[in-house]
Amino acid sequence: MREYFRHVAKEVFEKASKIKLLVTDVDGVLTDGGVIYDDHKTEFKRFQVKDGQIVQFLKAHDIKIGVITGRNSVVVKNRCEELKFDFHFHGVKEKSLVFLSQVKALGLTLEECAYIGDDIIDLPILKNVGFSACPDDAIPYVKDKVDYVSFYKGGEGVFREVADIILESQGKLESVVHNLASQKLQNP
Amino acid sequence: MREYFRHVAKEVFEKASKIKLLVTDVDGVLTDGGVIYDDHKTEFKRFQVKDGQIVQFLKAHDIKIGVITGRNSVVVKNRCEELKFDFHFHGVKEKSLVFLSQVKALGLTLEECAYIGDDIIDLPILKNVGFSACPDDAIPYVKDKVDYVSFYKGGEGVFREVADIILESQGKLESVVHNLASQKLQNP
Amino acid sequence: MREYFRHVAKEVFEKASKIKLLVTDVDGVLTDGGVIYDDHKTEFKRFQVKDGQIVQFLKAHDIKIGVITGRNSVVVKNRCEELKFDFHFHGVKEKSLVFLSQVKALGLTLEECAYIGDDIIDLPILKNVGFSACPDDAIPYVKDKVDYVSFYKGGEGVFREVADIILESQGKLESVVHNLASQKLQNP
Amino acid sequence: MREYFRHVAKEVFEKASKIKLLVTDVDGVLTDGGVIYDDHKTEFKRFQVKDGQIVQFLKAHDIKIGVITGRNSVVVKNRCEELKFDFHFHGVKEKSLVFLSQVKALGLTLEECAYIGDDIIDLPILKNVGFSACPDDAIPYVKDKVDYVSFYKGGEGVFREVADIILESQGKLESVVHNLASQKLQNP
Repeated sequence: MREYFRHVAKEVFEKASKIKLLVTDVDGVLTDGGVIYDDHKTEFKRFQVKDGQIVQFLKAHDIKIGVITGRNSVVVKNRCEELKFDFHFHGVKEKSLVFLSQVKALGLTLEECAYIGDDIIDLPILKNVGFSACPDDAIPYVKDKVDYVSFYKGGEGVFREVADIILESQGKLESVVHNLASQKLQNP
Repeated sequence: MREYFRHVAKEVFEKASKIKLLVTDVDGVLTDGGVIYDDHKTEFKRFQVKDGQIVQFLKAHDIKIGVITGRNSVVVKNRCEELKFDFHFHGVKEKSLVFLSQVKALGLTLEECAYIGDDIIDLPILKNVGFSACPDDAIPYVKDKVDYVSFYKGGEGVFREVADIILESQGKLESVVHNLASQKLQNP
Repeated sequence: MREYFRHVAKEVFEKASKIKLLVTDVDGVLTDGGVIYDDHKTEFKRFQVKDGQIVQFLKAHDIKIGVITGRNSVVVKNRCEELKFDFHFHGVKEKSLVFLSQVKALGLTLEECAYIGDDIIDLPILKNVGFSACPDDAIPYVKDKVDYVSFYKGGEGVFREVADIILESQGKLESVVHNLASQKLQNP
Repeated sequence: MREYFRHVAKEVFEKASKIKLLVTDVDGVLTDGGVIYDDHKTEFKRFQVKDGQIVQFLKAHDIKIGVITGRNSVVVKNRCEELKFDFHFHGVKEKSLVFLSQVKALGLTLEECAYIGDDIIDLPILKNVGFSACPDDAIPYVKDKVDYVSFYKGGEGVFREVADIILESQGKLESVVHNLASQKLQNP
């Protein structure tokens, strides 16, 4: 499988191999940063199906997933519940406080945590976790402070790629792909 | 017409020439993978007009079309009915079972079937049909397991390009284009 | 002004200089081809503000504008009325018939008409007007049958660019830009 | 911090260093120019979260922000109030008159004002302020009349980049980033 991750440095895989919790920001990571409204103040969000498709595999291997976001949006809450995130916090001013309390509740160390963020408010967590990542279109002065800059822009599957790297680093992706790709269907 | 398909290998045309059924995934193929909601859990989908414009020509030449998708969405059902897909199945866990039953019902062999998919769940069908394709932005470890990687990303006209290749491989596209392009209009 | 149109061939300007009517397709030209629905069959369209901003200048120089589209959409009708198109026809099967009747009603020749389209259904008109154009992401076998392939993709301002070329070819753009760019504001 | 702004000329920073008011157009700058409607004439706008995230830092350093737009849209008014713009004017025909009255009300000179616009209607202000900028996808004959062409397209964070340049030019960005990036979190 490593051939699909040629652009990922060996050090990144080493960091990813220890991860038991993957937490992500929402706007600009799970979305392309689009804040969409209509005339009646209804809010809309565009998520990426590829991000959701990996959740069952993370759960199957007991890697916890969480969301911490600075904005307050009903549609994000609904998406988090649809994807069965282990925790999700919205309208958070100090992300690191919420983050640390969750790490503690799960009995983990910071080295066992990964975080994906794209902006200034994410820096305190990004600089302290075991494995940090951001979208390819993150703010420039955030982008050079993470362990891994995704091949993808926000909303294109950044969460998916980071999840794939974590699963692959722990030897949990290859068998899934191999089993699915080697099924033989018979002419009916 | 082959000059418009210079990027398509001869082997791809050979496989396409046998196709009597074209089945496609939805999210990430007919769309760009965008999963869009508002505050009230209403779902939105963005399809591509170019995909729909080729359906009448597929039908005119009795090439069947179908949809099999893992998600459950009213808006996708409506679009399938608008485009008069011969069959469409939603919320499917094991895509290959549904696929095989449809192939059987139509009295076809797997060699006569084409499939477009973009993710891990599509691998069993992609690896067993006569002609398999995926969008240019499919998941990397899916992308290298298909016969043809589209010039287009999901939602940009992947289905249209695959349909065009099938029609062209069967000698059914050139006359349509030639007839339309050679009509003479008279000054009124 | 010609420096902004370096990519436009001299022959294109010659054709554009005779135009008195600019007609456009909608989906894939005024939009990026996105066909967007929600669960309740409500349709959404995304137009481009840049296309609308040039309409007042076309009208000021008595260049007529029209829309002929194969699809039937309330939201497109509303946009045509907002932009005060001189005529707009929707759900048209044979575009050339409607087109010719409008050319006749306006007392024009085909050489005085420009048309923008992106797909197979547009070929009869594209091949017979004085000046034909398409978006950069038009269907490949349409793209090489027009006088001018826009620098832009559908929904990015294709109509605007073609309108700019027509105005510039007739010496009607430079003074507008010069006047606006040379206004002197005084410190209050 | 200057390493993140390598693409920005020294002269641009000199102009930015004097700015006390940043005014922006909306469509094509805060958005990608998308004018989105549904069947019921409801309007939708897609803004960029990155633009909003810098507002608190502009306010903290008493840099005023304003919006002047030619279109009239409820959803834009709501977004301006959400972001607490110091002023916002909609449906404006002559932007320069409104602009000058605001400059006067704030007791500023034109040299202390920055403006971001993308189209012909913005030229009178762009050519007279102390620091002018436009998105990378602005109309070509506007693009070469500004002090700075953003690295970003409309809706991708143009306002954010210009705000970052202003803050950085005034020595107000580095400490914020440094403080956030150097916080030490303790294993719980």
